[in-house]
Amino acid sequence: MIKVVKIGGNIVDNPLKLDKFLQDFASVGGGKVLIHGGGKIATAISKSLGIETQMINGRRVTDLETLKVVTMVYAGGVNKSIVNKLNSLDCRCVGLSGADGDLIVSNKRSQEPIDYGYVGDPKSVNVELLTLLSSNGYTIVIAPITSSGDGELLNTNADTVAQTIAVAMAAGDEAVELVYCFEKQGVLMDVEDDDSVIAQVDGESFEKLKLDGVIVDGMLPKLENAFKAIDSGVGRVVICSAENISREDYGGTTITK
Amino acid sequence: MIKVVKIGGNIVDNPLKLDKFLQDFASVGGGKVLIHGGGKIATAISKSLGIETQMINGRRVTDLETLKVVTMVYAGGVNKSIVNKLNSLDCRCVGLSGADGDLIVSNKRSQEPIDYGYVGDPKSVNVELLTLLSSNGYTIVIAPITSSGDGELLNTNADTVAQTIAVAMAAGDEAVELVYCFEKQGVLMDVEDDDSVIAQVDGESFEKLKLDGVIVDGMLPKLENAFKAIDSGVGRVVICSAENISREDYGGTTITK
Repeated sequence: MIKVVKIGGNIVDNPLKLDKFLQDFASVGGGKVLIHGGGKIATAISKSLGIETQMINGRRVTDLETLKVVTMVYAGGVNKSIVNKLNSLDCRCVGLSGADGDLIVSNKRSQEPIDYGYVGDPKSVNVELLTLLSSNGYTIVIAPITSSGDGELLNTNADTVAQTIAVAMAAGDEAVELVYCFEKQGVLMDVEDDDSVIAQVDGESFEKLKLDGVIVDGMLPKLENAFKAIDSGVGRVVICSAENISREDYGGTTITK
Repeated sequence: MIKVVKIGGNIVDNPLKLDKFLQDFASVGGGKVLIHGGGKIATAISKSLGIETQMINGRRVTDLETLKVVTMVYAGGVNKSIVNKLNSLDCRCVGLSGADGDLIVSNKRSQEPIDYGYVGDPKSVNVELLTLLSSNGYTIVIAPITSSGDGELLNTNADTVAQTIAVAMAAGDEAVELVYCFEKQGVLMDVEDDDSVIAQVDGESFEKLKLDGVIVDGMLPKLENAFKAIDSGVGRVVICSAENISREDYGGTTITK
């Protein structure tokens, strides 16, 4: 069984929480893939370098200069510091970006109606490379930079990368779990109340929660990725707190068809 | 046969020359490992971020802030742009740092007599990881950041990384060639005259060339690495122009015992 785990940017930004998460993650047995977001470090470095971060509808526009920064920060700084920490905790791991071995090849997003720049939507996964490393005992740590397949790097949503990897691996023989870890306890009825976790969301209740305005903003694409995974052969999909990664039940919200 | 190729920072800094080199490198058959320097990009970015680059005896001092920058630039920016370019040229490759799978574990250099900061001297290589990827058809592109083995990243001389990788692979069954590619035509009698290439340097002539002041500065550690390789089982060691990587004879200077 393979666990595909996404760790959110807010945890990556918090050294203490990241450390605790990596210790727990290292202790989890079996095959593992970790996808990390980049957090706010890229924005801070862009600012120091005098690159203005342009946002449209809450999404970063990745111009060429920003692409260079996110590639450095995600695939270099964040990825290697996570990898090195995990190795020091005896979790033998290798860090990759989607460009390595064309692990994840994406379509560059259309410039219409909004031009988000060098942003990719995944279309294929090199499952053989994942299997090669995983079957030889390596945990794989993935930075959300993907390849156009013809020489361009593309900034890619880490939730989508996690979903894409989980679905691609589930198409093989292996049972796959997808776990979205972040700073909240799960999908909440009331975003201000950590005790209001919804234990289970299925397709029907998802529609209702959207209509009622309970699931909004960044939770919307996360849930969409979660449903895409559960509809595409991933055995178990959970959205939970980073604190619970080593708990068997994960707590949090389980997504069902 | 495995070719371990080091490409120098001056080529990495020059987009046109790097492109030409990567096209030639992609066309070379057989097992390949590419080690790249970082060039001046790290210094430029450090400067933009307000981090002062301190040099002692022509060597960069790697304080914690500088380490973060070189990790981002070498293992992120430079590594992934080379990897992506090579993949687009049908040279299937994976980019790693020395931290990935503890590929290269180093001793942190002693603070006496001079404290160079977070700098490592390689002590072990995970040859199994190199062989696993190489035997499955992947070229491996290595950034010169290594691991202390206990959670620290260390900035490491790329010439030394190349020598260490070549020696470690030569200890296995495979025949290994080590090729140092840079902006000059080879070891020159007169550093101003590109036609003054010394075709061959052996241990005896090396001592004489040092005494005569022909081999100085950065060429000294490069030659020392070259001799260490040829003395430690690497079958062929050449120092040549990046332009000649796809030539069978490489031109340049051959190192012999």
